Amino acid sequence: MKQVRISIIGFGSVGQGVAEVLMKKQDYLTKMGLDIKVIAISDSKGSFINQNGIDLNSALEQKRQKGTVANVQKTGVEIINEIEHDVVIETTPTNIEDGGVGLENMLASFENGRHVITSNKGPLALKYKDLVDTANLSGCKFKFEATVGGAMPIINLIKGVLAGNDILSIQGILNGTCNYILTRMLEEEASYEQMLAEAQERGIAETDPTYDVEGIDAACKLVILANSVFDMDSTYKDVDSVGITKITPESMLLAYNDGYVTKLIGEVRNGKLSVGPRLVPVGHPLSVGDTLNVASVQTDLAGPVTITGRGAGSIETASAILSDLIAICNNDN
Amino acid sequence: MKQVRISIIGFGSVGQGVAEVLMKKQDYLTKMGLDIKVIAISDSKGSFINQNGIDLNSALEQKRQKGTVANVQKTGVEIINEIEHDVVIETTPTNIEDGGVGLENMLASFENGRHVITSNKGPLALKYKDLVDTANLSGCKFKFEATVGGAMPIINLIKGVLAGNDILSIQGILNGTCNYILTRMLEEEASYEQMLAEAQERGIAETDPTYDVEGIDAACKLVILANSVFDMDSTYKDVDSVGITKITPESMLLAYNDGYVTKLIGEVRNGKLSVGPRLVPVGHPLSVGDTLNVASVQTDLAGPVTITGRGAGSIETASAILSDLIAICNNDN
Repeated sequence: MKQVRISIIGFGSVGQGVAEVLMKKQDYLTKMGLDIKVIAISDSKGSFINQNGIDLNSALEQKRQKGTVANVQKTGVEIINEIEHDVVIETTPTNIEDGGVGLENMLASFENGRHVITSNKGPLALKYKDLVDTANLSGCKFKFEATVGGAMPIINLIKGVLAGNDILSIQGILNGTCNYILTRMLEEEASYEQMLAEAQERGIAETDPTYDVEGIDAACKLVILANSVFDMDSTYKDVDSVGITKITPESMLLAYNDGYVTKLIGEVRNGKLSVGPRLVPVGHPLSVGDTLNVASVQTDLAGPVTITGRGAGSIETASAILSDLIAICNNDN
Repeated sequence: MKQVRISIIGFGSVGQGVAEVLMKKQDYLTKMGLDIKVIAISDSKGSFINQNGIDLNSALEQKRQKGTVANVQKTGVEIINEIEHDVVIETTPTNIEDGGVGLENMLASFENGRHVITSNKGPLALKYKDLVDTANLSGCKFKFEATVGGAMPIINLIKGVLAGNDILSIQGILNGTCNYILTRMLEEEASYEQMLAEAQERGIAETDPTYDVEGIDAACKLVILANSVFDMDSTYKDVDSVGITKITPESMLLAYNDGYVTKLIGEVRNGKLSVGPRLVPVGHPLSVGDTLNVASVQTDLAGPVTITGRGAGSIETASAILSDLIAICNNDN
């Protein structure tokens, strides 16, 4: 049995999802010969440490009841610096201003020789190359499938399953909130404002929806994809971004009657990054609706290959983190 | 540099695609530390052997000019039995009556301790369990991504990228010819017979289209998927199959006006296998048109994940074989 000691830094929706998934899949992991021990969990109030392995059920229970797992006044970065372990699961909230505490956590992990798995887009949308170079120099693995489209496993698809293929371009719907609003605008022939309000009511859009509807979230994911697949060093500020706030149901209906749906498409082609409304033929793999995310890669051998999945959700995102964890434990690429 | 000696048994469209792809990706393979040597190629007329590695360009040229590469009277199975090598790439035509020469080739390969990569559906749609058990007993790897939907990498997606997920059910469009005919019937409001004729003219349907339009091809692929993912031991005769020949454009148009497209869907659910016409909502990931193949897996963690790709084509299918070859060379699962 291979023992792997991990920390969960950031214990919001995704971090809790990771804990739930680790409990749910314990038998499966044991069968694979993996004994995964969570030795520390940090949230914004402090940390909980147990070198023999935290009882995840109690930790989740305590989080639900008290709003925090903290029983010691230690920050995530102190856990990373002070407690011996193998893998840091970094699930603090995205900060795209300066990368925030997530960036600090990742750099501290590499400095201490710990592998990192993250769902946090901020540091990767700002400092991709620095992070990857630092990880490589320190001999650490750095996995971030969960940053791009939650449970739409595009990065691992390209790196693993499509091995041998040159990737020529990437296009995708990388924001579920925008996809929901656009899908509903066409279905109801309703305005952007009306369908945004519906999305907010249903918990699909945030109270301040700027980050989603202006294309910033999609731009961050596009940058991570582009950097990772094409070995670029771009930031989300390099993306030519237009959001969905100016789209009218009348224009969408006209397009639909000609056989097209209107989607917010992120694209990497010839080193250029863009996010903006585009017309997609009905029946095209990118024409999916609801809150789905989708990414289509043009390859030299396999032609176009498209993958669709849920872009968000704590268990869905945790699933991407689990597959990254298994890959690290198995020493896969 | 790791030397890997392979044979290509069956040198029709897919076998030639493999030769082309190996030439095209030589630098890439070298960079990975792999020296892939094709030491024998067989077609229906005989074989061509060069223990130092065949010049693939000349072999392809000779095939084009003379219709065969044969310079010795040896069958594929004789090559497999007599010439020392590591991996057999089995690309003979599908025979669903008794598995034909393909089945013989695979069994001989395992008997001689050679790994097998195949695009040949017949043996797997008839004798899946026997083949897998024989491969396991002899310590050989057995990879067959190319049998299900050419360049739609569903098997490796499930086994690799979705690791940790339980697969609950699978649905998909597994036959590109049927998808083309149905897509065109709706576009042109034309009869099945008219659009079959168009597909035949364009080389998308065979002169005798039975195997495709009656759902047999889709049933074979479904069986391979089901056996491989759910560890079943079914044959294509266990599939409750209905084809597309009875579908009318009038019924398709009615459904479309209600927001549905008519597709030939293969499904595995609760151990039951079926292929038949089903209504799929427009905008659903399975609603793709043209000759595309698509498969959607329902998972316990990631939710539904869908992959779309070209179901046929010699280079596309060879791409799936290449990814299997890389996995075998790298000792991945």
